Amino acid sequence: MHYTPQTFNIPELDGISRETIDEHIGLYNGYVKHANLIREKIEDYSNDPDNNDYAVGEMQRRFGFEFGGMRNHEYYFTQFEGGAKVLPEGTLKTMLERQWGKVDNWYQRFMKIAMTRGVGWAMLYIDRQTDQLVETWVDEQHLGQLADLDIVLALDMWEHSYMRDYPASKKKEYVDAFFRNLNWEVVSRRVS
Amino acid sequence: MHYTPQTFNIPELDGISRETIDEHIGLYNGYVKHANLIREKIEDYSNDPDNNDYAVGEMQRRFGFEFGGMRNHEYYFTQFEGGAKVLPEGTLKTMLERQWGKVDNWYQRFMKIAMTRGVGWAMLYIDRQTDQLVETWVDEQHLGQLADLDIVLALDMWEHSYMRDYPASKKKEYVDAFFRNLNWEVVSRRVS
Amino acid sequence: MHYTPQTFNIPELDGISRETIDEHIGLYNGYVKHANLIREKIEDYSNDPDNNDYAVGEMQRRFGFEFGGMRNHEYYFTQFEGGAKVLPEGTLKTMLERQWGKVDNWYQRFMKIAMTRGVGWAMLYIDRQTDQLVETWVDEQHLGQLADLDIVLALDMWEHSYMRDYPASKKKEYVDAFFRNLNWEVVSRRVS
Amino acid sequence: MHYTPQTFNIPELDGISRETIDEHIGLYNGYVKHANLIREKIEDYSNDPDNNDYAVGEMQRRFGFEFGGMRNHEYYFTQFEGGAKVLPEGTLKTMLERQWGKVDNWYQRFMKIAMTRGVGWAMLYIDRQTDQLVETWVDEQHLGQLADLDIVLALDMWEHSYMRDYPASKKKEYVDAFFRNLNWEVVSRRVS
Repeated sequence: MHYTPQTFNIPELDGISRETIDEHIGLYNGYVKHANLIREKIEDYSNDPDNNDYAVGEMQRRFGFEFGGMRNHEYYFTQFEGGAKVLPEGTLKTMLERQWGKVDNWYQRFMKIAMTRGVGWAMLYIDRQTDQLVETWVDEQHLGQLADLDIVLALDMWEHSYMRDYPASKKKEYVDAFFRNLNWEVVSRRVS
Repeated sequence: MHYTPQTFNIPELDGISRETIDEHIGLYNGYVKHANLIREKIEDYSNDPDNNDYAVGEMQRRFGFEFGGMRNHEYYFTQFEGGAKVLPEGTLKTMLERQWGKVDNWYQRFMKIAMTRGVGWAMLYIDRQTDQLVETWVDEQHLGQLADLDIVLALDMWEHSYMRDYPASKKKEYVDAFFRNLNWEVVSRRVS
Repeated sequence: MHYTPQTFNIPELDGISRETIDEHIGLYNGYVKHANLIREKIEDYSNDPDNNDYAVGEMQRRFGFEFGGMRNHEYYFTQFEGGAKVLPEGTLKTMLERQWGKVDNWYQRFMKIAMTRGVGWAMLYIDRQTDQLVETWVDEQHLGQLADLDIVLALDMWEHSYMRDYPASKKKEYVDAFFRNLNWEVVSRRVS
Repeated sequence: MHYTPQTFNIPELDGISRETIDEHIGLYNGYVKHANLIREKIEDYSNDPDNNDYAVGEMQRRFGFEFGGMRNHEYYFTQFEGGAKVLPEGTLKTMLERQWGKVDNWYQRFMKIAMTRGVGWAMLYIDRQTDQLVETWVDEQHLGQLADLDIVLALDMWEHSYMRDYPASKKKEYVDAFFRNLNWEVVSRRVS
């Protein structure tokens, strides 16, 4: 198991600064590095299990954090590539309408999830076993990820996503900026 | 979003009692019930957001626990259906050998993960984006689930999985019993 | 920092078997051992920070689990010493009545907390800064412990507390047994 | 149970801006508000347990987060009151030297804890039962708080503590600033 950091081609965004994006991608690279580090350390330490079993166990327990920090951000940054695009006709739109009546109903609910207290992610997944969308809040990178589902939309609500551009008391403005810049065509392709 | 409890056709197992399985399936039904309950409660409570927003947020935050408790157990119980079967030739075996050298190396490492302190799951996933297997420990049902990956093998290490059959100090014997009863053909089909 | 395991003089209990208590004390000794192990490992590993910093960080992060597993259980087992005793007149009783109207109101609410889904502890604390009792649910040993407060009553709701004596579906009977055997004089002395 | 927000008399700090402190105190007030809100909501909702038991349970489970967010910050802000002061002779200094050999050894180790990946707190506690200092990392406000111990030093490592003043990649500079501004006399009085 080894992971290679991705690169992202992100245009100028409206309401999210270049500095924020650059620092944020730096953090992403840290997650990839540490996901790989855990694997390497576990391999090294396993040569002396009597001394290292406890440390191996704790690094393994942390893997979901580093892995989620990697994978979540890959979904996040990719959503800005190509610039803002409206939600096209297609499976995703059909599913949103089927489950929430209209897209705006889904949006109002998702905004509430995004404003959850704490740091983490507002997430929309597809459950291919039951052919439905499911959404939730994930604390940090990994606490409450929905088991076995595929990510469709990933909105980062860690303070590093917005705090260079907005004070803590205005995080709602960041969420608005996120949606203004979202390439819904990228998001839509994830359900096909 | 609505979930229907599955039924499982589980034969007599060697070292895991019928009573344990029956109680365990009762707990599974509780997870399905509460995953649905969260959705219903959020819908009801949302009619009066001024009074209920905080409660809605906390029920949503908990969803990963109930959902994971549902989905993890579906993978778990299905693995016993049809009775013990050895790992067949095929993609899973090939991947285990490619990544760990031989299947027994993987098994030794997975056993260590299973013996992690605390309650949760030893999990093997497939990452279809990078075509590799990834394994980890998940606390409880949902703390550290690997984002976006598909479950291949799910080993329940909550105390309710074994404590009617073995005292706490002998949980290793339960893990051995789990593998003695495992239908590897079911597991293997999950990667195809 | 070093911790020595305590011994407990626990009489025959009504509805909680000797086997359960003995296995449970075995688990307690494991927490003490691992709390000490973390300290020792951090000291050893710190000699080579380039290689070990990540492992040191993860063991330190886990310390609250092992420490809580030690300290919580010390409050738990001590509560059975000397055998069942009713709540005496005094500060604790006065505070319960002042805050909840009557002791039974507190008891009804605490029972609900004990029946929370998941594994952890129903806890009653005293906040000496504001001279009031505070109660909550703590997941596992350490997730949600109230910062800076002193434990007054600790009710273990991990499955190992009852599952040799009751099936999962009857955990309420264990809670009843806990209160039948509780030495309220021990509990009461903790607030003085 | 009810909590009243404290006010803090914080001088100009070196390397932590007034804007950061003001926004940070705003967040603190949010924690106090929501700790009280949970208590009020639980009381209200308990009038209709059939409809509300699940929501009550989830709000109670979250209490440790809001409570910790309140109490941790009270220790944090108070440490700046009166301006920077060196560690005086006395019990705290004696204990640091007894346990770590010299104060700088403790400081080097505490700095490592402060640089732990993720958001949370570097914490020093006193365990009055065993008359020793204990330190650890706490995730978020509440995940891994040491049960039953009293806080001595609380260093906030959430991104909101520094991100208006330093980019993510320079959080070490914030930690240095924290110690430059620390009133060790306040800290020292907490162990007496």
